[in-house]
Amino acid sequence: MTASVTSFDVARLAQVSQSAVSRSFTPGASVSEITRRKVLDAARKLGYRPNAHARSLITKRSRIIGLVLSQLENLFYPAALQQLAERLQRDGYHVLLFVNRNADADADDLVGEILQYHVDGIVLAAATLSSSLARQCADASIPVVLFNRVMAEAGTRAAHTVSSVRSDNVGGGRAVAHFLADGGHRRIAFIAGNEEASTNLERERGFREGLAERDLRIFARGVGNYDFAQAQLATRELFAAGLERPDAVFVASDHMAFAVMDTLRFELGLRVPDDVSVVGFDDVPQAQWHSYRLTTVRQPIGPMIEATVSLLQNYLRDDPPSPAENVVVPGDLILRQSARGGATPSAQGGGDARL
Amino acid sequence: MTASVTSFDVARLAQVSQSAVSRSFTPGASVSEITRRKVLDAARKLGYRPNAHARSLITKRSRIIGLVLSQLENLFYPAALQQLAERLQRDGYHVLLFVNRNADADADDLVGEILQYHVDGIVLAAATLSSSLARQCADASIPVVLFNRVMAEAGTRAAHTVSSVRSDNVGGGRAVAHFLADGGHRRIAFIAGNEEASTNLERERGFREGLAERDLRIFARGVGNYDFAQAQLATRELFAAGLERPDAVFVASDHMAFAVMDTLRFELGLRVPDDVSVVGFDDVPQAQWHSYRLTTVRQPIGPMIEATVSLLQNYLRDDPPSPAENVVVPGDLILRQSARGGATPSAQGGGDARL
Repeated sequence: MTASVTSFDVARLAQVSQSAVSRSFTPGASVSEITRRKVLDAARKLGYRPNAHARSLITKRSRIIGLVLSQLENLFYPAALQQLAERLQRDGYHVLLFVNRNADADADDLVGEILQYHVDGIVLAAATLSSSLARQCADASIPVVLFNRVMAEAGTRAAHTVSSVRSDNVGGGRAVAHFLADGGHRRIAFIAGNEEASTNLERERGFREGLAERDLRIFARGVGNYDFAQAQLATRELFAAGLERPDAVFVASDHMAFAVMDTLRFELGLRVPDDVSVVGFDDVPQAQWHSYRLTTVRQPIGPMIEATVSLLQNYLRDDPPSPAENVVVPGDLILRQSARGGATPSAQGGGDARL
Repeated sequence: MTASVTSFDVARLAQVSQSAVSRSFTPGASVSEITRRKVLDAARKLGYRPNAHARSLITKRSRIIGLVLSQLENLFYPAALQQLAERLQRDGYHVLLFVNRNADADADDLVGEILQYHVDGIVLAAATLSSSLARQCADASIPVVLFNRVMAEAGTRAAHTVSSVRSDNVGGGRAVAHFLADGGHRRIAFIAGNEEASTNLERERGFREGLAERDLRIFARGVGNYDFAQAQLATRELFAAGLERPDAVFVASDHMAFAVMDTLRFELGLRVPDDVSVVGFDDVPQAQWHSYRLTTVRQPIGPMIEATVSLLQNYLRDDPPSPAENVVVPGDLILRQSARGGATPSAQGGGDARL
């Protein structure tokens, strides 16, 4: 009888997660005293004893997830980092941080270094990796998840060993195009992020497709490279005297969109949205600030983090390891005050509205 | 002859740091191929062979620094995190992240967990720790540095084993008081951060002292708890109809100051600085944004990070370990457009100016 009691039975009786039961029996794992006491009580009542083999499988893990990050100035990443760290911490894992200056180069040097820490998994939020290194991680049974990006060479063998989580960049770009076109704009500009980044490639593709569906094309185009100062420069060029002025700008990130709005208002004396509509991408917390009230495509960080952690855990749990997956999480267009668009009248009101 | 050749001689000849020499001889340590080749060349020329004992001392280290962080929404912390991670990475160390929801509670539970990762050092940027745990870290020869905070019970034995790095909060608060008083303000309000945090206690103390030196007192006081939404509420209360209105507000962080400015302008219809001057603390990147152009006290992140890393490295290098230190880094008042003040006329011009 006792032999068939599992950690799930204990979890049910103690009203905690199965992971909390594991941690309660893992020396040194993170679990509150209250939870541990509940678990031990329930285990005693059920006659449960943790499986020594299962426990050794757990404890031989480093419980470290390597994370490669780049510029934390783009406010999307601090929010994602905090949620990832908290989410993993709840399961007794912690994030070991690696900073990659060039956000969209491959991270082979860095990943080699990460592997020496005997990490249980790797999340790349600021790089991709080469096919050969992807294979090396696969051979070492270390799951790799690309966060907010996808490998350029989809279809190569590497793509089958590396998972990815991103939001629906193509759908978001298309929704912005429809929104601006249906709001009567005819001279719609685009300010790109890093032109080689998958985020930018996908957002621009969706945007072009959406405009084409309204018989429009991109009226003018600049490159801000996901950088505040470069977005200011791009805005000055797009709105230079003597040129016909865009009546709307889709900016590939909120971080750049703030630079665009400030430049339009305070350098060029233009009103947003009366003279020019501005739409961003990400929905960082600052997009709600009253100075901006930025209409933007939300990247849903919570679901993206949840998908990332699931991919890691499924891989670590399953034998043989679960195959790589490319997860695309849908996002919403969040309507605020920075753009006139083709939405229902209520969406133009005071609060945030979703299209 | 050869016996007396040290890693410093190799470093000099190879024109790299001594730490790069160590890493070149440490299996698995981070060093570029170019650097490693330079080092190996120089070592061969000089007949240098690494000291096996010294190397084992290096390699038995985990090369992990535990970092406890809280809300990354306050934009000071992402910038500090990125600089700390990059600075440590240059020396072959990496940051293991622990998130503490309550930024100013003690972190004893978390630190117990950190110690199980066999970290080489701990940086607390979002907590303090109890005397008993400080002693435990000291017994394990693990240096602890409080970043942007200082232990409440200075003078206890724990304070002698835990170092701290902070900017001159008292001096900054005093400079703001003088600046606003000398600019002719007479109803100067204060919006506090977390009232138990050392940052807030010190900033408020310096501010009170500075006002007293101008025969003024705090005219009205609210608490924003370092939170955007709570700072909005505090602003509404301070400027409620029927009350005599403050003519200036010193806000204990930039992050809250943005909320104050938005509330004054967009909810209350007041002009900044014409009707109300606003001064912040931190000088986060957004303080330069044209929508805010916030006058603020700069916390010099670079020197603060440098001091933090030095304290860790000195402790790890010295035998017996170097004693704990409390480092205070001076900061400047950065004059922008959000406040009228008693500065030279040039300071009121277009660019940033330091007082």
